[in-house]
Amino acid sequence: MATINENYLKLKAGYLFPEIARRVKKFTDENPDAAQNVIRCGIGDVTEPLPQAAIDALKKATDELGDRSTFRGYGPEQGYDFLREAVAQNEYAARGLDISADEIFISDGSKCDTANILDIFGDDNKIAITDPVYPVYVDTNVMVGHTGQADEGGAYAGLVYLPCTAENDFVASPPSVPVDIIYLCFPNNPTGAVATHEQLQEWVNYAKANDAIIFYDAAYGDYISDDSVPRSIYEIEGARDCAIEFRSFSKSGGFTGVRCALTVVPKSLTGKTKSGEDVAIHPLWSRRSSTKFNGVSYPIQRAAEALYSDEGKAQVNALIEHYMGNAKILRETAQELGLKVWGGVHAPYIWIAAPNGVSSWDVFDKMLNEANVVVTPGSGFGKEGEGYFRVSAFNSRANVEEVANRLKALQW
Amino acid sequence: MATINENYLKLKAGYLFPEIARRVKKFTDENPDAAQNVIRCGIGDVTEPLPQAAIDALKKATDELGDRSTFRGYGPEQGYDFLREAVAQNEYAARGLDISADEIFISDGSKCDTANILDIFGDDNKIAITDPVYPVYVDTNVMVGHTGQADEGGAYAGLVYLPCTAENDFVASPPSVPVDIIYLCFPNNPTGAVATHEQLQEWVNYAKANDAIIFYDAAYGDYISDDSVPRSIYEIEGARDCAIEFRSFSKSGGFTGVRCALTVVPKSLTGKTKSGEDVAIHPLWSRRSSTKFNGVSYPIQRAAEALYSDEGKAQVNALIEHYMGNAKILRETAQELGLKVWGGVHAPYIWIAAPNGVSSWDVFDKMLNEANVVVTPGSGFGKEGEGYFRVSAFNSRANVEEVANRLKALQW
Repeated sequence: MATINENYLKLKAGYLFPEIARRVKKFTDENPDAAQNVIRCGIGDVTEPLPQAAIDALKKATDELGDRSTFRGYGPEQGYDFLREAVAQNEYAARGLDISADEIFISDGSKCDTANILDIFGDDNKIAITDPVYPVYVDTNVMVGHTGQADEGGAYAGLVYLPCTAENDFVASPPSVPVDIIYLCFPNNPTGAVATHEQLQEWVNYAKANDAIIFYDAAYGDYISDDSVPRSIYEIEGARDCAIEFRSFSKSGGFTGVRCALTVVPKSLTGKTKSGEDVAIHPLWSRRSSTKFNGVSYPIQRAAEALYSDEGKAQVNALIEHYMGNAKILRETAQELGLKVWGGVHAPYIWIAAPNGVSSWDVFDKMLNEANVVVTPGSGFGKEGEGYFRVSAFNSRANVEEVANRLKALQW
Repeated sequence: MATINENYLKLKAGYLFPEIARRVKKFTDENPDAAQNVIRCGIGDVTEPLPQAAIDALKKATDELGDRSTFRGYGPEQGYDFLREAVAQNEYAARGLDISADEIFISDGSKCDTANILDIFGDDNKIAITDPVYPVYVDTNVMVGHTGQADEGGAYAGLVYLPCTAENDFVASPPSVPVDIIYLCFPNNPTGAVATHEQLQEWVNYAKANDAIIFYDAAYGDYISDDSVPRSIYEIEGARDCAIEFRSFSKSGGFTGVRCALTVVPKSLTGKTKSGEDVAIHPLWSRRSSTKFNGVSYPIQRAAEALYSDEGKAQVNALIEHYMGNAKILRETAQELGLKVWGGVHAPYIWIAAPNGVSSWDVFDKMLNEANVVVTPGSGFGKEGEGYFRVSAFNSRANVEEVANRLKALQW
């Protein structure tokens, strides 16, 4: 009798984005005239064209596959050296950080990587996540059996939740209890918060003191506009010994539909056996990649490499400037309206407190019905997100200006 | 203290292909003059250019991403409808098989899928694999803790091995003991064997009688040259209730470096909870895909779709004819030499018994040293592969003819 993984049955049916899609569909079905006016600032998906440098490289590499003399079959599962070296040079060496090309694993997405990384760790680890949080961190831990059932508020037994609130400016401090694995995401999705060097140093010190490992999601790292804010966990003293970093081309190069990302596993990073012996993590992840993955498509890796050319860098910067220009408009509009606003400075997300104690889903419905704007209810990211909503800056300038006008016209 | 998944420590260090690479490197380092003569018939990787239809579609889709009006960001995790429908039509409906588009999940590789599928099943399942076997099936079960330690011969405690030998023509029959999950691969890697309708019906009957599920790897299905041989498990009565099928564009369309494959999960397929309740598998796999995967790159999905155009089909057929022409040369040459040969008729692999009781690795070394030809030692695929070696037909015609000549010149 083939049995299923019953942990999947613990997952709450109403995953955030399907529920949003359901409500939007209901609204547009019932209001066909308003349907064409709906502006989507919900899911964090890019909207602007792929950089020309990436397009040119992708097409050139595709042509190579059409010629026997330049054809390539299976590539290295961990990524081609040309891309690993471009990442090492541009993301790390250029910032004075000590990460070598063979510590960089090229993948098809940070969502996949932050999920798959659990494969190489033990099932007895105590897991800490922030609240609010990117739901994938939680759900993947549920799936592998690291939790019990969810309570009424959607919190799973067995996880250590680290509240991120207006009081701590949405940056959690290390807990007083020992935990083994910690998910941190800066710039943060959904709140747009960033951590200072000092705050991250506190986390690294905690991890080292507790033999814990930090999963550092820097998917939005390129949105940081100020050198005083760390763009990589490896800017922090000691992080090579306690942190895995995830980066992505999705939001920098507009690769959400192209699929390329990377994970950094320093060779100095170790975990423990149950009996307390040190085991290097790098060979475990390398073995996992070799056995369960076949590498990213060759033309896609060439496209990612092209983002580091002079032309590519200029185009990526222009994309980020565009989205951050949007973020500025949204942030300032909300501030002018007297709303409490976070994010939008080093991140393409604006995190807004719903006024007058309105719930997240109520403000979602109000925005959809009265302004025809789709936002993301904060409570979808966790209990502490209740009363907030997230507005994404991924849009055309015209749409963002229209959203700003509609926000101003709303009765708050 | 962050603990590791100690199951990884059970994995045998000398994975087959790295060991081959090590021996080839040693040989070419020590024999620089012979290095340029080495012909690789080891790993099953395609060598001929990508079909022009795929190239054109890939480039056209890339251009779409360069225009805001046709840009696409995140796609559906389960694959775009255009590709799911093309697969449903061409792989199934055209053969009179009842598989709908939404039962087809587009992925980046069959290796990944046959590994990841274990996520949604329980850890208490008894796993049956054939011997010899594609090593990924074994290693991924080791990684998730379905086995004990390996013995001297490399067999892991807890797995049920189904011997495939010359006596059963390398097609195993169902075991006398009950098992819960069965890996079958036809046309087989490494032996090139195919199963008849009657043999597969026996397996489906077994699975239904035991509430077992068959993982059917049909990655080489397009190499079947005769309609009497089943190309899909769903040609077998009852298979919709007990089988998941894996297919790939790697070996048909030359996509090993491009990355696209698919998994079929019929909606009628169920597994059991520990307490014996039926649970549909389709929503579990769909949820797994949504949470741990982000879909295949859009231009790559367009390239795969193009393989089903008239032009694409003709180009795929030409590729397969090329490789199967190679297979015929290799097979007939070995037969002329009086060797015992299997495969090479419905599969791009020739499976040869080493003469005079020579071991697999000894014949590997002999072929490398004396003929400068890299083959794959059968023992690398399991205990029952000892005494055999696999020759891949993925090569240029000139190389294959040269390999044939060198085989003839060898003192066996």
